[in-house]
Amino acid sequence: MDEQSTSMIEELRSRYGRRVSTSKSVLDQHGRDESHHLPAPPDAVFFAASTDEVADAVSLCAAAKVPVIPFGAGTSLEGHVAALRGGLSIDLTAMNRVLEVSAADLDCRVEAGLTRLALAERLAPQGLFFPVDPGADATIGGMAATRASGTSAVRYGTMRENVLGLTVVLADGSIIRTGGRARKSAAGYDLTRLFVGSEGTLGVITEVALRLRGIPEVIAAATCAFDTINDAVDTVIETIQLGIPVARIELLDEVQVRASNRFSGTDLPEKPTLFIEFHGSEAGTADEARAVAEIAETHGGAKFAWATNSEDRSALWRARHDAYYAALQLVPHSKGWVTDVCVPISRLAECLVETKRDLEGSLLQAPIVGHVGDGNFHVAMLIDPDDPDQVAEASRLNQRIIERAVALGGTCTGEHGIGAGKIAYLEQEHGPAVEVMKVVKAALDPHSILNPGKMFRDIS
Amino acid sequence: MDEQSTSMIEELRSRYGRRVSTSKSVLDQHGRDESHHLPAPPDAVFFAASTDEVADAVSLCAAAKVPVIPFGAGTSLEGHVAALRGGLSIDLTAMNRVLEVSAADLDCRVEAGLTRLALAERLAPQGLFFPVDPGADATIGGMAATRASGTSAVRYGTMRENVLGLTVVLADGSIIRTGGRARKSAAGYDLTRLFVGSEGTLGVITEVALRLRGIPEVIAAATCAFDTINDAVDTVIETIQLGIPVARIELLDEVQVRASNRFSGTDLPEKPTLFIEFHGSEAGTADEARAVAEIAETHGGAKFAWATNSEDRSALWRARHDAYYAALQLVPHSKGWVTDVCVPISRLAECLVETKRDLEGSLLQAPIVGHVGDGNFHVAMLIDPDDPDQVAEASRLNQRIIERAVALGGTCTGEHGIGAGKIAYLEQEHGPAVEVMKVVKAALDPHSILNPGKMFRDIS
Repeated sequence: MDEQSTSMIEELRSRYGRRVSTSKSVLDQHGRDESHHLPAPPDAVFFAASTDEVADAVSLCAAAKVPVIPFGAGTSLEGHVAALRGGLSIDLTAMNRVLEVSAADLDCRVEAGLTRLALAERLAPQGLFFPVDPGADATIGGMAATRASGTSAVRYGTMRENVLGLTVVLADGSIIRTGGRARKSAAGYDLTRLFVGSEGTLGVITEVALRLRGIPEVIAAATCAFDTINDAVDTVIETIQLGIPVARIELLDEVQVRASNRFSGTDLPEKPTLFIEFHGSEAGTADEARAVAEIAETHGGAKFAWATNSEDRSALWRARHDAYYAALQLVPHSKGWVTDVCVPISRLAECLVETKRDLEGSLLQAPIVGHVGDGNFHVAMLIDPDDPDQVAEASRLNQRIIERAVALGGTCTGEHGIGAGKIAYLEQEHGPAVEVMKVVKAALDPHSILNPGKMFRDIS
Repeated sequence: MDEQSTSMIEELRSRYGRRVSTSKSVLDQHGRDESHHLPAPPDAVFFAASTDEVADAVSLCAAAKVPVIPFGAGTSLEGHVAALRGGLSIDLTAMNRVLEVSAADLDCRVEAGLTRLALAERLAPQGLFFPVDPGADATIGGMAATRASGTSAVRYGTMRENVLGLTVVLADGSIIRTGGRARKSAAGYDLTRLFVGSEGTLGVITEVALRLRGIPEVIAAATCAFDTINDAVDTVIETIQLGIPVARIELLDEVQVRASNRFSGTDLPEKPTLFIEFHGSEAGTADEARAVAEIAETHGGAKFAWATNSEDRSALWRARHDAYYAALQLVPHSKGWVTDVCVPISRLAECLVETKRDLEGSLLQAPIVGHVGDGNFHVAMLIDPDDPDQVAEASRLNQRIIERAVALGGTCTGEHGIGAGKIAYLEQEHGPAVEVMKVVKAALDPHSILNPGKMFRDIS
């Protein structure tokens, strides 16, 4: 740590006392996420309690040119929170208040450190829910920053569609509010969506306004097992192409089902399996379920196994959300290298089947789960990050999978983001447009203090 | 025109011959839109035939620091196409090809100069439609540039939700492609949504990739008349709050109904009226229609008058789309000054009723139509732009309506954009965030050649 950083941190400590920490365990915890990426602890962690405090801290960092790394739940998967150039990690988890809920307008405003499960608990008594649900219990701010999605995006969209506005602390410590409460607006550049998915590189998100939904009258969930992954995916493709408005349609391959049975205590046939959910009226969901069951049958799917009460349904989706943690248990002490490609739905079968073939020839265990209704799936390659052969093999497979997806018109990341792990792939996918992103970055963060080393190669 | 502009235009003419025009009638036609804003003809018009040609022209303009104004159908309402600083209007209407349609992935890619009705004609035989439908037969590029919406946004979203990607010529003449065909992506900054709604101030949009929908099995449309505007709006609010997925729900006040009956030959009771449409299955649409009819009844609405066949339905929506042209006929030789506020749905009744009260005390004729399911409505104030009293009165009402909407948590423009007309209101609505927009603008267009005088006060 250089002298300027040291004196900046001392200044911050003089203002906020014990909420500025340099204890080793706190630094270590804030330098790592849930992935295989090597950790990099920050020089200090600031536990902020308000937007003004975040602005104050960022102003000090700006004056001293010290890097700023926003930190929520630490559940990202591309090394987003690693302090690659040192600096100050700003922990937002104490900023976890629900500031406002309007049932009449189906919207709310929350602090960025609130987690999605805590929000769900607050909304349920009012008959409301927020549909974006990544596997982890991430913070809403982190979800906005990585443009997260989850199992319900096929029906309700991702953070892109469901964030109405933001409060953001900029690189110079100034505070702006973006967006608004109107359902649509043509007033000026869409700064909300510029910051959604900017991964802490353009500002620190401190508050988020969200679009909510009413809890549907009927929620019906089922699983359906298939003999081959191809049959399962063909069922998904037909369902989507027919425009059947499934609320969720998720794939687990047989490796993942085995892992989930073991970890979550489910008792599913160890075959490629779809988890499906329908939202709507009694008649509407019954119609939709019948239609999907018929499609599944033509592809050799088993009879739907219904999760008949709300406890069974919760257990089912908890198992789905815990899929990654279940996968990690397949190989003791492993870390996950998780791919995240997303392709146009018509190319999904091809993409998945060829990926599966790659994996069959590999030494790595690698279960597959997917938000297949969106064309998005994850291969969780279980590796020992200290074993160079395993790292090289995962890297090789990762590259094959991404290059295939991009060649099919897809993207290297559907929902995890670029972080430190996909910088080269962002360039492959977007070519000259990345230069435009860098121009925007340089304009809004001229000294490159915001989450440096992420999304782009170093900007000097 | 200065010497540099003159020689630049001569150079362009040497390359493209008669597709570069300086004829007075062509210049006049390209300097005005459909609104009350005073026209400002460009120095020349270039009828471009390809993205490369646009890039070539913009490169010449960049070298000579000559303003560039993209031109589509000229149907904007805030003076977007007026050449306030002179320069080159680039007319994109010859770029009207459909480049690709994928029924399997429900997407397409078109050139920016294609109009929405021409696209609809191309898609219908494949059972597809594109849901964004402003009143005018605008170009798809213009719709993207102004973040347009229309009558179906309540169900299907606006250009923000329905543009998958863009080809854009930047201020230096370079070409980028943004977005992609995957349904979601977390790869980098959301440049697509940065350019959507940027009104030609960040680049010239030359191609647009769109998300499409399958034409629903059943389409059912009806009108319903009410005694008061309040009753009509309360019906809308309850419908939206109950989450009934109406495909369209539009309000015409009694003044507009009278205008439309006269212009479009409809025969509607001259009362505040909702135009409503349902999309879905036989059972689903019947359920929804019953539910909305019940709500309307509790608010004193008349029985639904159904447009029973597809010709009646088309006539109904053509009348709705022609509302502005019908309004203009109420006052011979008038121009329209059209407001465009959008508020959270719970504040819509209050906002509309108070606006109506303002209008009752005014000398101007001013029918109201609204995309009320989104909380968005238009007051078309019919004025003689050469009469300072009428202009002053329209300006006063406009200010009252916008300030009320913003105070209620709304926006000064739901779908028309800022253009030259709402620069001060953008500042009122977004405060310090406008400075961030200007930083982005300056970074991407350092010499301010792209549609200068729009969205922001001059950037020196």
